Amino acid sequence: MNADTLRKLFHEVRSGKLSPDEAVQRLRHLPFEDLGFAKLDHHRALRQGMPEVIFSEGKSPTQVAKIFTHLAAHHERSNILATRAAEEQYNAVATQISKAEYRPLARAITLHRDRRRYGKGAILVMSAGTSDIPVAEEAVATAELMGNQVQHLYDVGVAGIHRLLAHKSLLAKSRVIIVCAGMEGALPSVVGGLVGVPVVAVPTSVGYGAAFEGLAALLGMLNSCASNVSVVNIDNGFGAAYVASLINRK
Amino acid sequence: MNADTLRKLFHEVRSGKLSPDEAVQRLRHLPFEDLGFAKLDHHRALRQGMPEVIFSEGKSPTQVAKIFTHLAAHHERSNILATRAAEEQYNAVATQISKAEYRPLARAITLHRDRRRYGKGAILVMSAGTSDIPVAEEAVATAELMGNQVQHLYDVGVAGIHRLLAHKSLLAKSRVIIVCAGMEGALPSVVGGLVGVPVVAVPTSVGYGAAFEGLAALLGMLNSCASNVSVVNIDNGFGAAYVASLINRK
Amino acid sequence: MNADTLRKLFHEVRSGKLSPDEAVQRLRHLPFEDLGFAKLDHHRALRQGMPEVIFSEGKSPTQVAKIFTHLAAHHERSNILATRAAEEQYNAVATQISKAEYRPLARAITLHRDRRRYGKGAILVMSAGTSDIPVAEEAVATAELMGNQVQHLYDVGVAGIHRLLAHKSLLAKSRVIIVCAGMEGALPSVVGGLVGVPVVAVPTSVGYGAAFEGLAALLGMLNSCASNVSVVNIDNGFGAAYVASLINRK
Amino acid sequence: MNADTLRKLFHEVRSGKLSPDEAVQRLRHLPFEDLGFAKLDHHRALRQGMPEVIFSEGKSPTQVAKIFTHLAAHHERSNILATRAAEEQYNAVATQISKAEYRPLARAITLHRDRRRYGKGAILVMSAGTSDIPVAEEAVATAELMGNQVQHLYDVGVAGIHRLLAHKSLLAKSRVIIVCAGMEGALPSVVGGLVGVPVVAVPTSVGYGAAFEGLAALLGMLNSCASNVSVVNIDNGFGAAYVASLINRK
Amino acid sequence: MNADTLRKLFHEVRSGKLSPDEAVQRLRHLPFEDLGFAKLDHHRALRQGMPEVIFSEGKSPTQVAKIFTHLAAHHERSNILATRAAEEQYNAVATQISKAEYRPLARAITLHRDRRRYGKGAILVMSAGTSDIPVAEEAVATAELMGNQVQHLYDVGVAGIHRLLAHKSLLAKSRVIIVCAGMEGALPSVVGGLVGVPVVAVPTSVGYGAAFEGLAALLGMLNSCASNVSVVNIDNGFGAAYVASLINRK
Amino acid sequence: MNADTLRKLFHEVRSGKLSPDEAVQRLRHLPFEDLGFAKLDHHRALRQGMPEVIFSEGKSPTQVAKIFTHLAAHHERSNILATRAAEEQYNAVATQISKAEYRPLARAITLHRDRRRYGKGAILVMSAGTSDIPVAEEAVATAELMGNQVQHLYDVGVAGIHRLLAHKSLLAKSRVIIVCAGMEGALPSVVGGLVGVPVVAVPTSVGYGAAFEGLAALLGMLNSCASNVSVVNIDNGFGAAYVASLINRK
Amino acid sequence: MNADTLRKLFHEVRSGKLSPDEAVQRLRHLPFEDLGFAKLDHHRALRQGMPEVIFSEGKSPTQVAKIFTHLAAHHERSNILATRAAEEQYNAVATQISKAEYRPLARAITLHRDRRRYGKGAILVMSAGTSDIPVAEEAVATAELMGNQVQHLYDVGVAGIHRLLAHKSLLAKSRVIIVCAGMEGALPSVVGGLVGVPVVAVPTSVGYGAAFEGLAALLGMLNSCASNVSVVNIDNGFGAAYVASLINRK
Amino acid sequence: MNADTLRKLFHEVRSGKLSPDEAVQRLRHLPFEDLGFAKLDHHRALRQGMPEVIFSEGKSPTQVAKIFTHLAAHHERSNILATRAAEEQYNAVATQISKAEYRPLARAITLHRDRRRYGKGAILVMSAGTSDIPVAEEAVATAELMGNQVQHLYDVGVAGIHRLLAHKSLLAKSRVIIVCAGMEGALPSVVGGLVGVPVVAVPTSVGYGAAFEGLAALLGMLNSCASNVSVVNIDNGFGAAYVASLINRK
Repeated sequence: MNADTLRKLFHEVRSGKLSPDEAVQRLRHLPFEDLGFAKLDHHRALRQGMPEVIFSEGKSPTQVAKIFTHLAAHHERSNILATRAAEEQYNAVATQISKAEYRPLARAITLHRDRRRYGKGAILVMSAGTSDIPVAEEAVATAELMGNQVQHLYDVGVAGIHRLLAHKSLLAKSRVIIVCAGMEGALPSVVGGLVGVPVVAVPTSVGYGAAFEGLAALLGMLNSCASNVSVVNIDNGFGAAYVASLINRK
Repeated sequence: MNADTLRKLFHEVRSGKLSPDEAVQRLRHLPFEDLGFAKLDHHRALRQGMPEVIFSEGKSPTQVAKIFTHLAAHHERSNILATRAAEEQYNAVATQISKAEYRPLARAITLHRDRRRYGKGAILVMSAGTSDIPVAEEAVATAELMGNQVQHLYDVGVAGIHRLLAHKSLLAKSRVIIVCAGMEGALPSVVGGLVGVPVVAVPTSVGYGAAFEGLAALLGMLNSCASNVSVVNIDNGFGAAYVASLINRK
Repeated sequence: MNADTLRKLFHEVRSGKLSPDEAVQRLRHLPFEDLGFAKLDHHRALRQGMPEVIFSEGKSPTQVAKIFTHLAAHHERSNILATRAAEEQYNAVATQISKAEYRPLARAITLHRDRRRYGKGAILVMSAGTSDIPVAEEAVATAELMGNQVQHLYDVGVAGIHRLLAHKSLLAKSRVIIVCAGMEGALPSVVGGLVGVPVVAVPTSVGYGAAFEGLAALLGMLNSCASNVSVVNIDNGFGAAYVASLINRK
Repeated sequence: MNADTLRKLFHEVRSGKLSPDEAVQRLRHLPFEDLGFAKLDHHRALRQGMPEVIFSEGKSPTQVAKIFTHLAAHHERSNILATRAAEEQYNAVATQISKAEYRPLARAITLHRDRRRYGKGAILVMSAGTSDIPVAEEAVATAELMGNQVQHLYDVGVAGIHRLLAHKSLLAKSRVIIVCAGMEGALPSVVGGLVGVPVVAVPTSVGYGAAFEGLAALLGMLNSCASNVSVVNIDNGFGAAYVASLINRK
Repeated sequence: MNADTLRKLFHEVRSGKLSPDEAVQRLRHLPFEDLGFAKLDHHRALRQGMPEVIFSEGKSPTQVAKIFTHLAAHHERSNILATRAAEEQYNAVATQISKAEYRPLARAITLHRDRRRYGKGAILVMSAGTSDIPVAEEAVATAELMGNQVQHLYDVGVAGIHRLLAHKSLLAKSRVIIVCAGMEGALPSVVGGLVGVPVVAVPTSVGYGAAFEGLAALLGMLNSCASNVSVVNIDNGFGAAYVASLINRK
Repeated sequence: MNADTLRKLFHEVRSGKLSPDEAVQRLRHLPFEDLGFAKLDHHRALRQGMPEVIFSEGKSPTQVAKIFTHLAAHHERSNILATRAAEEQYNAVATQISKAEYRPLARAITLHRDRRRYGKGAILVMSAGTSDIPVAEEAVATAELMGNQVQHLYDVGVAGIHRLLAHKSLLAKSRVIIVCAGMEGALPSVVGGLVGVPVVAVPTSVGYGAAFEGLAALLGMLNSCASNVSVVNIDNGFGAAYVASLINRK
Repeated sequence: MNADTLRKLFHEVRSGKLSPDEAVQRLRHLPFEDLGFAKLDHHRALRQGMPEVIFSEGKSPTQVAKIFTHLAAHHERSNILATRAAEEQYNAVATQISKAEYRPLARAITLHRDRRRYGKGAILVMSAGTSDIPVAEEAVATAELMGNQVQHLYDVGVAGIHRLLAHKSLLAKSRVIIVCAGMEGALPSVVGGLVGVPVVAVPTSVGYGAAFEGLAALLGMLNSCASNVSVVNIDNGFGAAYVASLINRK
Repeated sequence: MNADTLRKLFHEVRSGKLSPDEAVQRLRHLPFEDLGFAKLDHHRALRQGMPEVIFSEGKSPTQVAKIFTHLAAHHERSNILATRAAEEQYNAVATQISKAEYRPLARAITLHRDRRRYGKGAILVMSAGTSDIPVAEEAVATAELMGNQVQHLYDVGVAGIHRLLAHKSLLAKSRVIIVCAGMEGALPSVVGGLVGVPVVAVPTSVGYGAAFEGLAALLGMLNSCASNVSVVNIDNGFGAAYVASLINRK
């Protein structure tokens, strides 16, 4: 039921073809969902500053390029982000959109057009080890494209607690902190105990043996003895940054 | 947005107070879900013959009695079913509703008022062992209250295949078959291979050790080599009968 | 013990060579299973409209072609379906049977000869995301070859509930609905709540991390709060369509 | 190394007993942690409005009463919260502190003294079913004691999506939403898709069989197709409210 | 189709009422399974020396007594065995059948009537620790009632390998060995390496923590580096003895 | 402590150099294990007819050839068996030992020299599906090299129970039966119920999704409702045949 | 083969009754394990200072008292330790052995007779939370009875890292550290990073939900990013202290 | 806060610019962690004899060479160890550092400069099978580079217990024993029972099917009935040697 149908209905009521009661009846039998314009408008506001996102894994370079180009054309002021992207996928995009950039550590293709600041504070992205950096960098790229001031602090795992403590003031200045950690996934608990802001924990699949592809880190984070920690899926740097960006919204 | 609001809107259009275009705008900004009357009506038809259901586990006898009585009063022609019910819960119900019956094997309290036949064929409920019978009986009670002709065949596990084969004609006459089995959960595969109708498999928590509370049976059924088998949750005799009843609908 | 043996036995009784009692004794010591003709006949009827099926994964193109050709020759009026088939496997088949077709999305090789309608209503195949489409398309191909009217509705995941609601009337017109979903596997519950027909849920291995190759979706579907949902194995689009076709049989 | 020790060190430098270089050396060999006063002060500010919390499970009524009284005396302006508390534990507390209240649904003992508003927006606490209400109520009690405006919306599971949609405006007005759900745990995904604010998902141990004590809901939520969802431990209503309160801080 | 029906059929053929061809047709449409007399006879021989068995867990004393008495009456020469039986269940049986005995360690009620020796060699039942003895004793009781010479060797876990080696000659004299072990379940591998006969391994639920109710022992035994080890379910002393008795049959 | 050392000790006693008491002392402090000759002799008898075995997976063709040749030379009358062998590994062996044969289905390299019959009855090897045949063939090859009469029966899965029943007499003639099955692993239970001999069940990794690489079949078999079933590791056709051969020993 | 048998053998050699060669032959056919005296002597030395230990769980008070008394009598200088002991079990012991003591937090009955110091350094036992103290106290009691200097440090979980750092000098003075932690089990990693001695980690079953009875802590510890951490079973305070005592041996 | 800042502070106190009380205040507000010099010194001592370590898996040859060279230059007297290294990675290192060696079995690149003996006793490294040798060799290489006397004993699995017992004296001479085992992981328990020193158990991922990538061995070792066994992660030969070296320190 689009606007035309609705307008026609009202015209029929106006012209007397249809009594108000008949109109109510007819309206009741129409699929109500098509009336949801307000919802879309409402969402449009909410989505301000949100990037358009492509999950590239399992797609061909051609497919990624096609979707990327389509989104860039139809959301002409939005940022575009392709996550889990390989360099070949970027190359295919770059032939179409010269301003697209590739961030190899983050495995992300970005088209950064809207550079307004939507977040009110700083988002800090931390990693326990160097192997967790790709996940952390995906978070960094995402948070930047969502209009946040982003800082990072890498390789500050709990087995060398002094490296972490040396940066306590950086932690204290952040509005929300993303912590990426594999293996035992203990860093979010320690960080959570040092700060009074929300910590979004990202288990990574870093590790071997009883790490079980990130399961050990995931369970550790869910059982954190720090109460300000919540958790997203294994390796989901994008999701963590998305949540953090919403927390950081003005 | 109830009917009065809608009617008022149309009256304003009719009287010229509001142009059709203005009315469209106003309609767009109203919460659309309140228009969903058709949906409710539609559902009312669908729900014909469906019992009202209470999951009794974890509720006090008083709570069960209160909900049961409430449902019996507000759905005055419907059947009422309380599953996973203990005898004390039934006693509490019986003091209020004398026609309520207790089926101890099924652990079900039933108020059977609508005795019309909604199903077109017969539903056969099978159990592999005697310990699976409570789950099977829950299915029987549910299917009966949903207006089906129900038959059962118990203790026909695969280690005594001749007991099963002796009843092949009964299997052949059923429109849909529910198979309850614990331990290795193999019966649905054998039954599935003997018939050309849908088999709804119910893993039960019967067994010990590596049965892992029904997990072994569940995995077995999901991997059935018979293609006509689908599966519901462990011990979910009610759900199996609900699905089977919908399959059996005229 | 084939028909000849049996006939000979009766002739000997007729001619007086064998007393009825002796015949009973002799019959008792014969392997009873060879008497199962009725069963085969009976099954032949049941199998009307059922395709012959090959699971292609792990087979060489030559093997698939050989089995396909064999089935096509021995079941000359049946449809033939090879699931999980790669394009090379199709090529090997096509050199033998020119009418065989390849459906790349469904990864299926089909020989569609029997085009009669065996199902009485429509089967709707839904997918939550675009990555679930291969599984959904396997279901579509299977259901079509089994003589059903099939419709599909893709990319209507629960995080965008309005896309789903916009098609509620399509849902309402279906006799049985197949829902393919990975990740959290929530779509069958929502769909189940909107309709009064059986929903066959197919968890897919779409997702990463804590999706655990489809386990998360599987568990979600088994615990559906909608009572009209039953579940098949992960990625088993074929099985879901098989069950749905039997439900839909006239 | 307390203030006196430090002061003495500086006096020795001032008096010339110790050269600055010697003082640096001496300082280096002192346990550095005792200097962390600033940290404590800093934390004191952060902790403003935070309740003191007791996890009551596994503690005797006497133990709970003792700790409760101790905390109430030493944090004389703070709110005190005992979670997972049974009525007997409350009774023991109440004999000591008459203003303590018991919230049976939430299984919480509360001493609500600081009634300032620390949160800037509203926190909405939702539950999928009625069985999830105890977890939701724990979240409500916690969020209230942490100085938030709290609203709730219960029994709006995804199998009856219209009940949820009927309250969309309530969702739209919240700064952060807590969603408690057991069984398939699908509600956070649907809610997440309807709003543009952070959703904190709490899997509950509600369900049976393949719910595996909340594992199914947990995995479902971690794999949510909505990007604004993060997750806390099973049944951890307190933790969800703690995170939500920090998000909601002015 | 019992003997009378068959006999009648042959009489009709003899008398000319029915032609042999008609008889073949009629036979084909009868349920074939009822012809399986040979099978039953055959099985009767196989079952010689097999006890009748009741799994007592979850049954009331009255139920156990009823079934026990029934089996004792209908299999008047067979041994009767009730496993997982509590003393109250025995008491109920004993009031009916005075010759029934209770073996508390084995938690078994036995009626030992057929004392013939069906096994040709000795069965040795071993336990790794003292906590595994109940499972081992269930095996001993079962093997004895199945007509075997049974010996046992308890508390010879692998952490004290000399205790085991001191009895190597006993091992060498056995035709088949049952090994019950919890915790790491290592004993079957060591025993398997010392002998040239089949070893039936029974994981027990003895242990705590990462023993996971017998899972650790189960996995250990399935991965035994000794090739002569096969495994039964956790705590299944009965099944192990059943298999061992069949191996030991003359 | 080899024979020479021992002999020297006794000569010293004989010659009076050492008193018997001193000799006992000296003996006590020698490593006792080296005295285990009897054990080796004993084992030599036990090992009669046992093949020498190489697990080829993860070894280079050169390595397999080297070990194979070494074993063939040092156990000149024994059969040699290399399991999990690829064709390249066979080629490397064949250049050294022309009589070695390759059995591609079984993925086995065999050198069959000792053709005596060590087993007293027949071993029947069954498979549920065609995909289970490689595991079954490994069992066949192993059992043959261990001196058994071996028969096989393939593709008799439980969803087509009549195919299995048609061969019941073959089952009845076997002394021990090996059953290989993937997916739900139900065949051993059905077979176990039809015979009175030990059934050795081999779960295979055949299947997908919730088959979890053979876990579903494994759990199914461990929970078999037939008491004469014991289980070996997933895909362990060799181990099953080894156990079966020991059961079948004269 | 005891000393007498051996002595007799040598006497026969000495007297010429037996040639050395015959003696070698005879020796070869004796069960070699009975010669293992040296082993026992050797072990006696090793076991100096080791307590005799009873695992009390699942034993009646009478049984514990009986074993305790027996061990106390036969190992008259050793310490006796009963772990996982309830107060009633202690009461039964105390009536027999008045010097036995009960340590309720550790759930241990101790008879401390040998008070020599066998360890060379100090063992530090740490707990992350107060709920982990029972496991920690079991370790303390065990380590004390094994002759070690033992210190403890409780409630120093990683979410309050300053509490831990305040005690760094205590950590630095220990020869080996036992760390007991439930929930995410992160403490051993942090401790491991602060010290240069072995850390024995004990996961505890403290926690709920996704703690899965200690599994989360166990996995965390196994994946520790600190290289000096090894792990024992969940709740195994005794085992940790046993290992630590051996590390600490002079 | 580095030394200069501190020195300046003291100079200001000395010169009277700052009163001691003001200095205390200022110190309190500085980040305390920068004062941790003592800690570093302390650690420097602890780290004596510790190799610098690179985990090579997932790094390019160039990356490994770069880090290796960097560490070799900055820790000029330390040993350098790259674990999980492929030959190409070694080749890249060797072009820079000619003295680096490759140990292919251990998959380790070593630069062995500090050849002092830091351990007081011998470390024995054992493997159950030949497939476990790579993990064992990683332990050997690590222990050697950490200044220990190292011995090894391979292929002494528990199914051939005599091979193990033949080397009991070697076991008796070791200060700490590392045991690497896959499949059922039973060797540590047997070894633990034979010695009175700590046993560090390393589960390996050797095995197939129900070995579940080392999980079976891991669980087995955690449940060891020998009390002197602690466990590290699957395949973690490095970690085991690290722990063993600390145990073995003088």
